[in-house]
Amino acid sequence: MEQTAPTLAELQTLIEMTGTINMEVFYWWCTGLMVIIHAGFLAYEMGASRLKNALASGVKNILAFAFIVPTFFFFGWWIYLAMYNGFTPDFEAAVAGLPWSTSMGPNLTDNATGIFWGAFVLFAATTASIFSGAVIERIRMSSFLILAIVLGSGVWILGASWGWHPDGWLTKEWGFHDFGAAGCVHMIAGFFALGVTINLGARIGRFAPDGTPILIKGHSMPMTIIGLMLIIVGFFGFLGGCIIYAGGAQWTTIFGTPVTLSAVSFNTLMAFSGGIIGAYFITRQPFWMMSGGLAGIVSAAPGLDIYYPPLAFLLGITGGVVAPLADKIITDKFKIDDAVGAFAVHGVSGMIGLIALGIFSGFPNVVAGAPDISFSGQLMSAGVMALLGFVPGFGLSYVMAKVGFLRVPPKAEIAGLDLVEVPLEAYPESVPATETPIRTSTVTA
Amino acid sequence: MEQTAPTLAELQTLIEMTGTINMEVFYWWCTGLMVIIHAGFLAYEMGASRLKNALASGVKNILAFAFIVPTFFFFGWWIYLAMYNGFTPDFEAAVAGLPWSTSMGPNLTDNATGIFWGAFVLFAATTASIFSGAVIERIRMSSFLILAIVLGSGVWILGASWGWHPDGWLTKEWGFHDFGAAGCVHMIAGFFALGVTINLGARIGRFAPDGTPILIKGHSMPMTIIGLMLIIVGFFGFLGGCIIYAGGAQWTTIFGTPVTLSAVSFNTLMAFSGGIIGAYFITRQPFWMMSGGLAGIVSAAPGLDIYYPPLAFLLGITGGVVAPLADKIITDKFKIDDAVGAFAVHGVSGMIGLIALGIFSGFPNVVAGAPDISFSGQLMSAGVMALLGFVPGFGLSYVMAKVGFLRVPPKAEIAGLDLVEVPLEAYPESVPATETPIRTSTVTA
Amino acid sequence: MEQTAPTLAELQTLIEMTGTINMEVFYWWCTGLMVIIHAGFLAYEMGASRLKNALASGVKNILAFAFIVPTFFFFGWWIYLAMYNGFTPDFEAAVAGLPWSTSMGPNLTDNATGIFWGAFVLFAATTASIFSGAVIERIRMSSFLILAIVLGSGVWILGASWGWHPDGWLTKEWGFHDFGAAGCVHMIAGFFALGVTINLGARIGRFAPDGTPILIKGHSMPMTIIGLMLIIVGFFGFLGGCIIYAGGAQWTTIFGTPVTLSAVSFNTLMAFSGGIIGAYFITRQPFWMMSGGLAGIVSAAPGLDIYYPPLAFLLGITGGVVAPLADKIITDKFKIDDAVGAFAVHGVSGMIGLIALGIFSGFPNVVAGAPDISFSGQLMSAGVMALLGFVPGFGLSYVMAKVGFLRVPPKAEIAGLDLVEVPLEAYPESVPATETPIRTSTVTA
Repeated sequence: MEQTAPTLAELQTLIEMTGTINMEVFYWWCTGLMVIIHAGFLAYEMGASRLKNALASGVKNILAFAFIVPTFFFFGWWIYLAMYNGFTPDFEAAVAGLPWSTSMGPNLTDNATGIFWGAFVLFAATTASIFSGAVIERIRMSSFLILAIVLGSGVWILGASWGWHPDGWLTKEWGFHDFGAAGCVHMIAGFFALGVTINLGARIGRFAPDGTPILIKGHSMPMTIIGLMLIIVGFFGFLGGCIIYAGGAQWTTIFGTPVTLSAVSFNTLMAFSGGIIGAYFITRQPFWMMSGGLAGIVSAAPGLDIYYPPLAFLLGITGGVVAPLADKIITDKFKIDDAVGAFAVHGVSGMIGLIALGIFSGFPNVVAGAPDISFSGQLMSAGVMALLGFVPGFGLSYVMAKVGFLRVPPKAEIAGLDLVEVPLEAYPESVPATETPIRTSTVTA
Repeated sequence: MEQTAPTLAELQTLIEMTGTINMEVFYWWCTGLMVIIHAGFLAYEMGASRLKNALASGVKNILAFAFIVPTFFFFGWWIYLAMYNGFTPDFEAAVAGLPWSTSMGPNLTDNATGIFWGAFVLFAATTASIFSGAVIERIRMSSFLILAIVLGSGVWILGASWGWHPDGWLTKEWGFHDFGAAGCVHMIAGFFALGVTINLGARIGRFAPDGTPILIKGHSMPMTIIGLMLIIVGFFGFLGGCIIYAGGAQWTTIFGTPVTLSAVSFNTLMAFSGGIIGAYFITRQPFWMMSGGLAGIVSAAPGLDIYYPPLAFLLGITGGVVAPLADKIITDKFKIDDAVGAFAVHGVSGMIGLIALGIFSGFPNVVAGAPDISFSGQLMSAGVMALLGFVPGFGLSYVMAKVGFLRVPPKAEIAGLDLVEVPLEAYPESVPATETPIRTSTVTA
Repeated sequence: MEQTAPTLAELQTLIEMTGTINMEVFYWWCTGLMVIIHAGFLAYEMGASRLKNALASGVKNILAFAFIVPTFFFFGWWIYLAMYNGFTPDFEAAVAGLPWSTSMGPNLTDNATGIFWGAFVLFAATTASIFSGAVIERIRMSSFLILAIVLGSGVWILGASWGWHPDGWLTKEWGFHDFGAAGCVHMIAGFFALGVTINLGARIGRFAPDGTPILIKGHSMPMTIIGLMLIIVGFFGFLGGCIIYAGGAQWTTIFGTPVTLSAVSFNTLMAFSGGIIGAYFITRQPFWMMSGGLAGIVSAAPGLDIYYPPLAFLLGITGGVVAPLADKIITDKFKIDDAVGAFAVHGVSGMIGLIALGIFSGFPNVVAGAPDISFSGQLMSAGVMALLGFVPGFGLSYVMAKVGFLRVPPKAEIAGLDLVEVPLEAYPESVPATETPIRTSTVTA
């Protein structure tokens, strides 16, 4: 570098470019770490499937990711930029999100769009993976993919535009505050999953003829809980993606309020721990402990920027206690078969999280010009998110079920989706493919 | 951004804030990558358990993490700030670590505490996980948790305050130099584990009546070695957490001596490789190769900042050769059952590491005003770390054993902890739960 | 920090040091994330091995890593600095790469060498891991290690010096453009693997006496595809390592042309998705979907800096379609047994990638003074990379095969390499070690 004295303006340019480069680096690692979420989901959902369906669950997961990326390129990002007012698009603001915009590709004068888009794509893929766990072992591949695309490149990003955007109408009009995407990611994915599972119906053998639930056990619990811990690793990318890197100024939330990464560090770890402990006291088993840890983070997610850490811990415990209980109610009372408890862990915890921040309000740092965080604002926004997830999930799957397109035939389900869909065996040396009786017996056992 | 010429002071503020933000980012990723250590430990310890204990080992691991986070919030961090003089707390210096301090929560004027605390919590959880591997398959859950909390939120952080702190008395008085926490993390956890395993006793079937050791094999060696490689990934977070990001100035160690990340890159990779190779020549098997790689890094850890890389390689080989041999001595001569060799890999290698830096001294870069790195300083400090780990581990577990609280009843151990403690099966389709004879036979096989 | 007004020169120093530190941080994370590639390869290759060979495959993988690090320290890095002209070393330029250079160790005035070296070592280890998958289940350990060292610390880095270096002769003379190392890493490793597999021969039972291929199935497909997803995670470290962090200036490729990380984010995700989708339509199974995703990234790798994202998507589809077909041809027509399709995924896709950038040329941003990107330049360079990989791999393994050193004896292969080489069992409770008939039967089944 030249050693002649630089001017003030030159130095300023140098500093600003330093900030730009480091901003890109920050979201690059967020994106990379969020890919770990998908390694985790693969392990989690394959482990939670029976032997006869393990690979089919993996295929769905991988394929959902693959279809969401291009669809999010072609219309998902545009929705985020356009729809912050509700259902009236701001075409002007969204020009930069049109797939032929110069921002939507390599551009030496725009170091931001691609890297933000990348992080958002990973959020999108996460919503699809949350949903996919609920419907394993009986959904038809093609209907699953349509639903995953609608959720991942449509519904959730509409919710993000409404309540996770500096100009979102929920933020502007109701003072909605949701640091960690408990609403647009977790609630929407969870309620979407609920809507679909209602129409999809339970797996064969999940309930006895008299309605008594019979637990269907995944074939590898160790694989599942390792997967869940990898998802927690990925959460550091996810939560990093919830915060705006502003170079030489303090961090802000994605809707513009100030925050430190230190605050997020405190509260994420405390809420995760609380969730594990809460679920342990209720269930004593590791699937729910890890799911409870997740539920704990989600239950504190809206206020990870502002909570006092012991409060985040208590909210985490709450999430960890409620999630397995909520799942039990869904199963035992409503006879809904959500194979991994996605609605309880994401939908219910997200709702707890949004409402809790309304209860523990009095926090002043909302967007300039917007109302303060309030109980009613959080509650009504949670209602919006619930509907925004549930209605499309229920509606679409209702139509699909009516035309007989939603679910694989019973024969295929009993034989196992791997045999029907995947020309490959999960463990060729462990379970002889010819011994279908052994496989089938696990359904009724 | 405004394009009017900024003042020098404005630019300086801009640069400093850039540094602050990037400091937070750096430790945020350290923390996230250290969570991978726990995904790794889950895989490692479940894989190293027999089928009948796989989930119980996982539950212990997850729960230790969950209990260390809040306890480290409530008193662990305070210990670090207060106890650098030995046993006399500096109450004034530790005010910022009181759980009701404004630093211990979201605070827009403090971008540092939460992010440092987060990284330290992960160190704490790592010590507990090192210990937990040694005692799997027979320790009682409640006694394990008490021991894990004492180690993770008490003992190790006291050691860190003494020897891994710019004002620690070991640093100031003996010139103790330990870049990578070979003392406070590895030695203390390893010697603590040794103390507990002595009182805990060997697993049923680990030694024949005549004292001949009988290897108890973990149920999934692939899971174990993948887990160990994930721990190595996490080491990049761990070692990042050992270095102070100072913005516009050179890096320093946690006790204030200058260092580059480049140096750590060279020596970590060389020591890891040496450890693998050393262990391979002794054992030819992957469990010890990966454990040897870990032992290699630990054996070079105190001087990762200053060694010439080929020296780090040789120290790595030494660690990789000694760890399996030390474990053999512990087992064959002393009849101690350390299920994963935690004492050998962490305790012995940590001691090798600290003493080796004393042998290869003549390195000038110690803390200003402190004595140079010396053989006697390193040796005595290693002794302090050994005692600091061993005495509480041995003492506490001795009392627990006396009151019959330390270990599960033999019947539970033989039946398997999963059956007794965990209402869930690891592999429901692989091992029929009714065939207990098959499970039990593995104990005596 | 002092609050007296700083001088312009002081501020500039501050900014530049900020840039230096952040540069180190960036590559440190690249290195750490690339270690995930090796956790992924472990899972991938052990899962792709039969039960009787699972641990032996893991041992090879771990040991290759361990031997490449020191050899790359002693001569690999020197080759990169010296050989950019072809076969005539520039001894002067390479002085800094001599193992006794002050740059090759801790040095407070050089924050760059160690961190770049670390990232390059991980590239080197990746080439060895790409190769290792092809030759599992029958190669002799010692010959494998020699080949791995030649590839990882010799051949590929020579290719990098030629075509992935600001002064490389392929860049300077032919305008060769290869952002993501499709040539020096993927093609060279893939063609090296091809050369070795020709001389190594197929595994016993891979082809019926009449030449009909019989698929040998890996023992754990879930482990394999989770491993592949971890490799994709690591790709974020890998691609990060392909880009030069320049502090207060725009990013450049490793050969000096401008680029944004945003561009890489767009195109990597699009190409990965395309690859999955392409392979899905051809194969419907997850091993090839994930391998296809990899092939997709490789097929777009040379132009990840400049492609319009939908083009990267189409190239990804191409790579994902071609890889399984290419592997089928290699197997069915040429009777070559590449156990994981390494040649197809890396060699063929790398070639597609290099040539495709020639087809879609007209991109102006090549190195100053060098010719534009051209079809002929890319094609000829691809030819160079193919030869540079194939010739040493074929030649060396030809000699090894002639002297009977390349392959384990048939008896050992049939019994399983774990039994012969590894004093440890992969799953001691699942497969009784005494029941060799069961193990052997899988060969002929």
